[in-house]
Amino acid sequence: MATPTPLDPCAPGAGADRCAPLTREPLSAEAAATLARRLKALADPARLRLLSLVAAHEGGEACACDLTEPLGLSQPTVSHHLKVLVEAGLLTRDKRGVWAYFALVPGALDALAAVLATPAAPAPR
Amino acid sequence: MATPTPLDPCAPGAGADRCAPLTREPLSAEAAATLARRLKALADPARLRLLSLVAAHEGGEACACDLTEPLGLSQPTVSHHLKVLVEAGLLTRDKRGVWAYFALVPGALDALAAVLATPAAPAPR
Repeated sequence: MATPTPLDPCAPGAGADRCAPLTREPLSAEAAATLARRLKALADPARLRLLSLVAAHEGGEACACDLTEPLGLSQPTVSHHLKVLVEAGLLTRDKRGVWAYFALVPGALDALAAVLATPAAPAPR
Repeated sequence: MATPTPLDPCAPGAGADRCAPLTREPLSAEAAATLARRLKALADPARLRLLSLVAAHEGGEACACDLTEPLGLSQPTVSHHLKVLVEAGLLTRDKRGVWAYFALVPGALDALAAVLATPAAPAPR
């Protein structure tokens, strides 16, 4: 089983040696590889829609059984995409009875957004 | 020649029918396809490093001649990655004399960051 990618790009051992926005200073090869892996997990229309469906679902959690019909994809295809998102550290998976339930990993998308955002200009005095 | 992707996901004709964070409501198929295309352009270690090198360069602009050596890639490979970033609306390209000069498209990375970020919780009263 693949090890989930650490969620916080600033966490020790996350493989990114910095958590500053990528526009502040040149990215190291290692930090670029870590960030590219996470962005690749996101860069798929079905996976973006799944994240968005899970987040918008009541209680921020959705059963796999709720996610197949809105996308018009087969259940094995949806399961594959959900697995990629779990392994990328973007979704949590909780098996309860017959079904698995998915929720956003708190802070994971915000951490990616923070790396992409350009630093705010200093406020005028 | 490929048409550059519009820069602002909220702009008319950008193909995204919304500019709210993807966690606020389910993404439409069209908005997901547009966002996935942009993320795919970003989801490559060499392209992330190029963006970061350009942004950190003096004046926020770099000559193609400055970008080959730091990455340890061939000039045709670097040119290919720069072309992908220009076509994705993330870099501008300005040919002056023998060399092309590249700069970040203002706001393009921030627009992506804004779509990924989760809306802030209401401030406590």
